[in-house]
Amino acid sequence: MEQNKIRPAEGKLGILCVGLGAVSSTFIAGTLMIRKGMGKPVGSITQMAKIRVGRGNDAQYKHVSEIVSMPSLDDLVFGAWDILPDNAFESAMHAEVLRDRDIYPVKGELEKIVPMKGVYDQDYVKAIDGTWTKDTSLSRWELMEQVREDIRRFKQEQGCSRVVVIWAASTEIYIPRDEEVHDSLDAFETAMKADDRKHIAPSMCYAYAAMSEGAPFIMGAPNTCIDIPAMWQYAEKTGTPIAGKDFKTGQTMMKTVLSAAFRTRMLGVNGWFSTNILGNRDGLVLDVPENFKTKEVSKLGVIDTILKKDEYPDLYGDIFHKVRINYYPPRNDDKEGWDNIDIFGWMGYPMQIKVDFLCKDSILAAPLLLDLALLGDLALRAGRSGMQTWLSFYLKSPMHDDGHEPVHDLFQQYTILKNAIREMGGYEADEEID
Amino acid sequence: MEQNKIRPAEGKLGILCVGLGAVSSTFIAGTLMIRKGMGKPVGSITQMAKIRVGRGNDAQYKHVSEIVSMPSLDDLVFGAWDILPDNAFESAMHAEVLRDRDIYPVKGELEKIVPMKGVYDQDYVKAIDGTWTKDTSLSRWELMEQVREDIRRFKQEQGCSRVVVIWAASTEIYIPRDEEVHDSLDAFETAMKADDRKHIAPSMCYAYAAMSEGAPFIMGAPNTCIDIPAMWQYAEKTGTPIAGKDFKTGQTMMKTVLSAAFRTRMLGVNGWFSTNILGNRDGLVLDVPENFKTKEVSKLGVIDTILKKDEYPDLYGDIFHKVRINYYPPRNDDKEGWDNIDIFGWMGYPMQIKVDFLCKDSILAAPLLLDLALLGDLALRAGRSGMQTWLSFYLKSPMHDDGHEPVHDLFQQYTILKNAIREMGGYEADEEID
Amino acid sequence: MEQNKIRPAEGKLGILCVGLGAVSSTFIAGTLMIRKGMGKPVGSITQMAKIRVGRGNDAQYKHVSEIVSMPSLDDLVFGAWDILPDNAFESAMHAEVLRDRDIYPVKGELEKIVPMKGVYDQDYVKAIDGTWTKDTSLSRWELMEQVREDIRRFKQEQGCSRVVVIWAASTEIYIPRDEEVHDSLDAFETAMKADDRKHIAPSMCYAYAAMSEGAPFIMGAPNTCIDIPAMWQYAEKTGTPIAGKDFKTGQTMMKTVLSAAFRTRMLGVNGWFSTNILGNRDGLVLDVPENFKTKEVSKLGVIDTILKKDEYPDLYGDIFHKVRINYYPPRNDDKEGWDNIDIFGWMGYPMQIKVDFLCKDSILAAPLLLDLALLGDLALRAGRSGMQTWLSFYLKSPMHDDGHEPVHDLFQQYTILKNAIREMGGYEADEEID
Amino acid sequence: MEQNKIRPAEGKLGILCVGLGAVSSTFIAGTLMIRKGMGKPVGSITQMAKIRVGRGNDAQYKHVSEIVSMPSLDDLVFGAWDILPDNAFESAMHAEVLRDRDIYPVKGELEKIVPMKGVYDQDYVKAIDGTWTKDTSLSRWELMEQVREDIRRFKQEQGCSRVVVIWAASTEIYIPRDEEVHDSLDAFETAMKADDRKHIAPSMCYAYAAMSEGAPFIMGAPNTCIDIPAMWQYAEKTGTPIAGKDFKTGQTMMKTVLSAAFRTRMLGVNGWFSTNILGNRDGLVLDVPENFKTKEVSKLGVIDTILKKDEYPDLYGDIFHKVRINYYPPRNDDKEGWDNIDIFGWMGYPMQIKVDFLCKDSILAAPLLLDLALLGDLALRAGRSGMQTWLSFYLKSPMHDDGHEPVHDLFQQYTILKNAIREMGGYEADEEID
Repeated sequence: MEQNKIRPAEGKLGILCVGLGAVSSTFIAGTLMIRKGMGKPVGSITQMAKIRVGRGNDAQYKHVSEIVSMPSLDDLVFGAWDILPDNAFESAMHAEVLRDRDIYPVKGELEKIVPMKGVYDQDYVKAIDGTWTKDTSLSRWELMEQVREDIRRFKQEQGCSRVVVIWAASTEIYIPRDEEVHDSLDAFETAMKADDRKHIAPSMCYAYAAMSEGAPFIMGAPNTCIDIPAMWQYAEKTGTPIAGKDFKTGQTMMKTVLSAAFRTRMLGVNGWFSTNILGNRDGLVLDVPENFKTKEVSKLGVIDTILKKDEYPDLYGDIFHKVRINYYPPRNDDKEGWDNIDIFGWMGYPMQIKVDFLCKDSILAAPLLLDLALLGDLALRAGRSGMQTWLSFYLKSPMHDDGHEPVHDLFQQYTILKNAIREMGGYEADEEID
Repeated sequence: MEQNKIRPAEGKLGILCVGLGAVSSTFIAGTLMIRKGMGKPVGSITQMAKIRVGRGNDAQYKHVSEIVSMPSLDDLVFGAWDILPDNAFESAMHAEVLRDRDIYPVKGELEKIVPMKGVYDQDYVKAIDGTWTKDTSLSRWELMEQVREDIRRFKQEQGCSRVVVIWAASTEIYIPRDEEVHDSLDAFETAMKADDRKHIAPSMCYAYAAMSEGAPFIMGAPNTCIDIPAMWQYAEKTGTPIAGKDFKTGQTMMKTVLSAAFRTRMLGVNGWFSTNILGNRDGLVLDVPENFKTKEVSKLGVIDTILKKDEYPDLYGDIFHKVRINYYPPRNDDKEGWDNIDIFGWMGYPMQIKVDFLCKDSILAAPLLLDLALLGDLALRAGRSGMQTWLSFYLKSPMHDDGHEPVHDLFQQYTILKNAIREMGGYEADEEID
Repeated sequence: MEQNKIRPAEGKLGILCVGLGAVSSTFIAGTLMIRKGMGKPVGSITQMAKIRVGRGNDAQYKHVSEIVSMPSLDDLVFGAWDILPDNAFESAMHAEVLRDRDIYPVKGELEKIVPMKGVYDQDYVKAIDGTWTKDTSLSRWELMEQVREDIRRFKQEQGCSRVVVIWAASTEIYIPRDEEVHDSLDAFETAMKADDRKHIAPSMCYAYAAMSEGAPFIMGAPNTCIDIPAMWQYAEKTGTPIAGKDFKTGQTMMKTVLSAAFRTRMLGVNGWFSTNILGNRDGLVLDVPENFKTKEVSKLGVIDTILKKDEYPDLYGDIFHKVRINYYPPRNDDKEGWDNIDIFGWMGYPMQIKVDFLCKDSILAAPLLLDLALLGDLALRAGRSGMQTWLSFYLKSPMHDDGHEPVHDLFQQYTILKNAIREMGGYEADEEID
Repeated sequence: MEQNKIRPAEGKLGILCVGLGAVSSTFIAGTLMIRKGMGKPVGSITQMAKIRVGRGNDAQYKHVSEIVSMPSLDDLVFGAWDILPDNAFESAMHAEVLRDRDIYPVKGELEKIVPMKGVYDQDYVKAIDGTWTKDTSLSRWELMEQVREDIRRFKQEQGCSRVVVIWAASTEIYIPRDEEVHDSLDAFETAMKADDRKHIAPSMCYAYAAMSEGAPFIMGAPNTCIDIPAMWQYAEKTGTPIAGKDFKTGQTMMKTVLSAAFRTRMLGVNGWFSTNILGNRDGLVLDVPENFKTKEVSKLGVIDTILKKDEYPDLYGDIFHKVRINYYPPRNDDKEGWDNIDIFGWMGYPMQIKVDFLCKDSILAAPLLLDLALLGDLALRAGRSGMQTWLSFYLKSPMHDDGHEPVHDLFQQYTILKNAIREMGGYEADEEID
């Protein structure tokens, strides 16, 4: 057993959310309720799942916290930044995700979570007017320095031994990777100092600041923020874990399951049309084409990898795949994803599958925030710096370096996740994933 | 490499279908077209999939026939029994599954496939009047003897070195396992000779006859036919493989995928309502409550096993699961399965998924017949007698003996299938499946 | 203007609901809230619609209360019978249809509405155990006398000038019309006195009692209660209006709209499959085949009449129509109706329409109760006794005598409804409805 | 009886289709088959419906041809223009709407229908490369003259006594009404002569030419072509009927039915999301934003008029209505429209309706072409020149002059249609439509 290599989860763990909207407030209010025994952390692997360790006759099913040292929910402390001034209680009430009766019992605790002012550049989120922002005339480097200062202050005031930073804010406009600026740490830092607003997104200030303070950073939106070599280098240099991007919640999660099934059964696919309607702030932001572009790139890649189109050109060589997201205010946080899938079977005969997923965006995302924060911290304690590809299970567009293909199949991702936990717990990993 | 233990697939392989309706005629016509290069065997693992053998740097992806000796499609010969006299061409035209242009090029070959007279007992399929039957006054034992004679004659006339018998006929009424009759081979044979029509279904005559002739027997309907100890004993005694039951085609296949996804993601389930409309002979038969009962038992078990309700009572302890099948003639073979699934996430909040699967029953089933026939024959050549649990991938209600739980998760079933093929091919199997 | 023939709506109007479950409590709580200005009577024609009176240049759009004398919502007083003892507040809370915030402001008023003990015969609603019932050993006639006494007491205690009785309780088992018992008033009264429990349903005791007290009676369930000549005769004899049967709420309402559209466009129909899932008391009762039978008869008739199958045999002569209702507790009052409709167009080519209606049974029914009670009272004041076919707009299976066909087309029904109101208001009716 | 005012339908009627794609070829092939007795004109009012004439005891139900003089299908002759050279047989085969067996019996007749070269300007249909076009360097006026010449030649060669021109080609880009060019006939003719390509769409050349030759013109796409005062004036001047625009086939037809039902029942609406997937040429053209704009304007207006939002602001004052069309090649002509409708009932409680319409665009459109051509000709024979608002029943965006509101409610439109036919047949019209 080599678990002793992992630093134990002692002291308080601070979870700093970038964005204190529907997702973060549902996550925080829920966690507070759960630790009072007034709810269950449904959807959280770290809290509910049992993982097999050992094999054959030695096989045992254990909770994650029985395999590796994990903080209890009582050890968590919450903070946030936002570009609007609502505290966590106001935000939760405004989001209308949780019912009043699931918010009021922790009202006092929520009201104390007042966001720190956010880094704001309207060019990156055209649909929202920030009213609670850091000085927009400052350079990206200066803003980053302010975020570092925020982290240090939070850590000290709350008495945290460790901090994790997790992005749960809007999708920024699409920033294509620019080799000159994004491929080396030096060039990147130079650009920040030169306030190169075209190549340095606000989210990058948070990511760089978090790593500078030794805090793991998780990118929950499809922003390319940490999906560039400069950030990978900085993560290695600072010894901090990073993970991204884009929480895999509803429609894409289903996609990574269904396409795995089609390939397993050798059923062909010639069309996949996905449309979404949602009415929360996320929907509003994604209604702007430049922001949708970021999401679209994140959502489209999924199928081809799982289906192995190059191996099976007769089955998957010609798929018409289209993804649409529509801002639709009547629904608020109740997102609906409607998929039509055109498959074909024996002798090429066509069949259709329609999936209508009436989900709640924040309800699906909240347990992912909890798991990613806790597992990001675990990676830090295990000395695993840089890109955490084993967390791809939670992510729509898993990070991978230039030489590798990401794994999208939900079940293969789960095996990878379990293997990492097994290894950190001193157990043997399963050898193969397909 | 130990593949030499497997007898090579030399000579012709006869595939005898019990029932020459939509499923069988689609299977046969398709196979004939495919071997002319006029179609693809979409949905067939044995023809299209590539399976990893070896590990790490030694990993290779190979077709099944590259791993173990398999007959080519040109080696196949087809025959059938039915209780109606239509030949395979007439049956395919009447089924309206394949288009005329996918039947006519093999018209001549199909017309030569005239069914042998079937074993018929109207008490077992109330909705169909058999007009092409063996003498209904004969005892079950005598009927079985006639089926044996049919098999021998077919084998000789067609010059087959081996034969497989596969049930692709109607669902019979539900015959609960009777310990006195079904649990020992002796008692079972005695009952056949005594013409105990209440406990011996017509399908059992085929199964017993097949094994007597050394032919693997596959049960594609939910009939409990070979799901009893007497048959297991006879399979061991005769050294023949058997597999069943109920082809896993549309809705249940999706169920075994979606429920695996929910459990993987720790999302709770509190309701699952499945309704089907279909208008072919299968639908007509299942409209009779006693026949539906057989199907219902087969369809309902799936979820609980996959979700591990005992391990996760908070998530899966209280699921309301209902399955309905409706005879609906306007659709003919175009089956539609509509599922509504009530799931819950973080803090117990409810969400809904609706899946509408507009499928074609026979198109989904045809490649399963092909695979099961070829893999049943492979098992025979590999000396694997008795219950073939590794074929559960294809079956809605996989056979298992009294001491074991069946595996329903499609992806775990696939791993088991691949492992069996790896082993027969002289490769190492993957150790674990979850 | 001949409106003076109608007695003005002076004094209080008592509305007595048979059954104080989800539907009645939603109706009563809603009405109380609405008259406080805390909600809108959405779905109610009498409260919201404007009807054209006059023609051409004289056309005017007026609210119903501007055309005929109508009571204001402030004039209404509520009472109920039930076989369970919950008061209206408890019932509304238990139903979980309205949110707490839409019940609490009228909690005091609701608590005062305590049900009178109900007439109960378990043979008629097998799924419910009545615990708050009149003496079950009494004869039907004696029970009816007790109900009359209840009505008189309520009227006096509440100071009502008029009373309406409306059935909003369970569907009873199917009682086919028996010519000997149901076709003459004499035979019917004799059977009541002889306590003929097989032919006299509990609901008939309420209907007979209401008429005896001069109160209009509305049948909201599919019970054949007042759909028999004996009741028509008694209604004429007592000068009271009666109307039924079965509130037309969700799926059937849609059906009467869609089939009208198909016929208008001369699109053919060859199949209509309707399935429902619902989890309230109504669903529980309908899960019993004898009770479902009553509902099925009510639901199936709709299409043929609208489509005029005899006039258009090429289009509608061969429709496979199937209706299923499934008890599905996870949904409670949130009823879901899924319809698949197979239509055909030019040259007979098939197309499909699927309608998924996620509705709330009680939300759809509540305004129908309000309208039917008020319009039943209007009929009384207008001296219109007997069967009120002009109220068919609200009813799934409109009453009609032996010589007439019912009108099911929602838009034609609306014209008929408006015409009756126009006439009562002294305006000319439109002449034709198709 | 004043029917004698209508010129009888003597001699041959030429139907000239602009565009010989899926819609036109399905219409023509179908009509030829139907007149051979090999199919039914399902969806056609003129061929199948019976209309009531007379009232009360005098009421009779008659076919249209029994009320007014109508040509028989045998009197019809077909011609077409297109910008691709395929003849009607090739086009029908390529469209894959009708099965081979419904095309081959009229192959010879179809092959003789070779399109005349079309008026083409790629700026108006960016997605299609015309290869069979009139000289693109000619002015709009010269092109119009060529079309006139085409009509005269066709009429003479085919020996037609009358001709109707019907647009069944692509949606052009959106041309907003320009007061200076489009509001007077003089200005319009001047612009044509000056070859003002920005304001004069190719479709306008056909419309002007048709009227010049005394041929009724029908606009089946959403092009604003004849929806401008200049065209109304020219229609009056030439005494020719015109009608438009945009065939009301699938989703919009359903919308005009469902919204009528909601208003009738006083159910509120707060959101309506409509998405379409289709893969034929129409879909390809509409994938270009400028062309979609034309369609969107046509599709969005429908709801508000029917719901009378100004009369019922509480119910319909705030509807979020969005329409999306997606080019999706896997489906070809099999269009699918998915609607999600958010309605609300009693006390404002929300409910949802989802409608999935798997339709065939050309199958729905074909009978509309037949009816509009025959009824356009009827209008001509009845001396009804100018805008034919009574044909709105068939049109998504019915033409109306500046002082009037269009009627969208399908049932009201049908009453208007029937009234016009009644009047032309010498019967009294019904007075009111709501």
